[in-house]
Amino acid sequence: MNSERLSRQIEFLVEMDKLKNVVRQTLLVDGARQENSAEHSWHLALLAMVLVEHAKQPVDLFRVIKMILVHDLVEIDAGDTYCYDEEANLSKAEREINAADRIFSLLPDDQALEFRSLWNEFESRQTADAIFAASLDRLQPLLNNFRSGGFMWQKHGIRKEQVFRRNSPMADGSPILWEFAQNMIKDAISNGWIGE
Amino acid sequence: MNSERLSRQIEFLVEMDKLKNVVRQTLLVDGARQENSAEHSWHLALLAMVLVEHAKQPVDLFRVIKMILVHDLVEIDAGDTYCYDEEANLSKAEREINAADRIFSLLPDDQALEFRSLWNEFESRQTADAIFAASLDRLQPLLNNFRSGGFMWQKHGIRKEQVFRRNSPMADGSPILWEFAQNMIKDAISNGWIGE
Repeated sequence: MNSERLSRQIEFLVEMDKLKNVVRQTLLVDGARQENSAEHSWHLALLAMVLVEHAKQPVDLFRVIKMILVHDLVEIDAGDTYCYDEEANLSKAEREINAADRIFSLLPDDQALEFRSLWNEFESRQTADAIFAASLDRLQPLLNNFRSGGFMWQKHGIRKEQVFRRNSPMADGSPILWEFAQNMIKDAISNGWIGE
Repeated sequence: MNSERLSRQIEFLVEMDKLKNVVRQTLLVDGARQENSAEHSWHLALLAMVLVEHAKQPVDLFRVIKMILVHDLVEIDAGDTYCYDEEANLSKAEREINAADRIFSLLPDDQALEFRSLWNEFESRQTADAIFAASLDRLQPLLNNFRSGGFMWQKHGIRKEQVFRRNSPMADGSPILWEFAQNMIKDAISNGWIGE
């Protein structure tokens, strides 16, 4: 056994614990507090297991889940960028690339390459697996925001066109889930949780 | 599209959000707060991705990860049972079976069966996949307890023989990880974090 290899793997896993402290602009369904990116990643992976039959194209669920498990690791350095914060989104790509350089290089070289490549694939949204994973990454916050009474949309004064612009790519991964999401968005507008 | 099916899937996923509120007797590495079972499940799945090469027998990583993602869902009803709480452990199996009956039956029948069977397999620890998953489920809290300064062991007055009894089955899933864990436990004893 190469103990230096195991030791790098363990240090990576200890460092990744920090994702539990990255707070998102989404409440838990019960509204008690904001969600963090580690539990969000778990919830997304569970969505993938349950909703995979609704993918537009055939997907490899194993790859979808692995992508989901690593998709937010860069937020340990780059923070969670709120999808409706236009200014923060200007610098997002650069911050996350720097983060990916540091974080994945904590792993042994072969695993650094594997993880980086999963993350790149998720970010590029070119493969069926990545497109479906990205659709779930849009659906989950919509669902939590809706079921927690739309507090976060109201707090940030989010408007209808922002929500549609952000979420309509969900149709590429799953027309069925996008149809479901549109009904939720329409209800949220009727409730006055999302501005006209 | 069968909209009753989608609607059951969504209600299940909304209900599973409650796992983010189940608090464990493990601190985050930075000691800031106790970990919840949703972020613990994510962390375990990441351990599986990184440490799979150390499994004693060949395992199917996809199945290991799926088992990990669902292994704690029953805690939504049954709560997290602290591994060193002997009294609570007497009623654990019954509480968790009742929980499994309710929780998995929220899903469409075919998925209820699939999820229940993954959970049963994890609990029974008879297959190579389940034995490895269970080893990781022992390693992760050890790692977090050790790296957060052993506070939880001290708080509960945990002794050496309890830690060895609880964790020695890790050897069945991975002798290499058990060797690593034993060194950590010995250091924790030297530090006075675990009683002699």
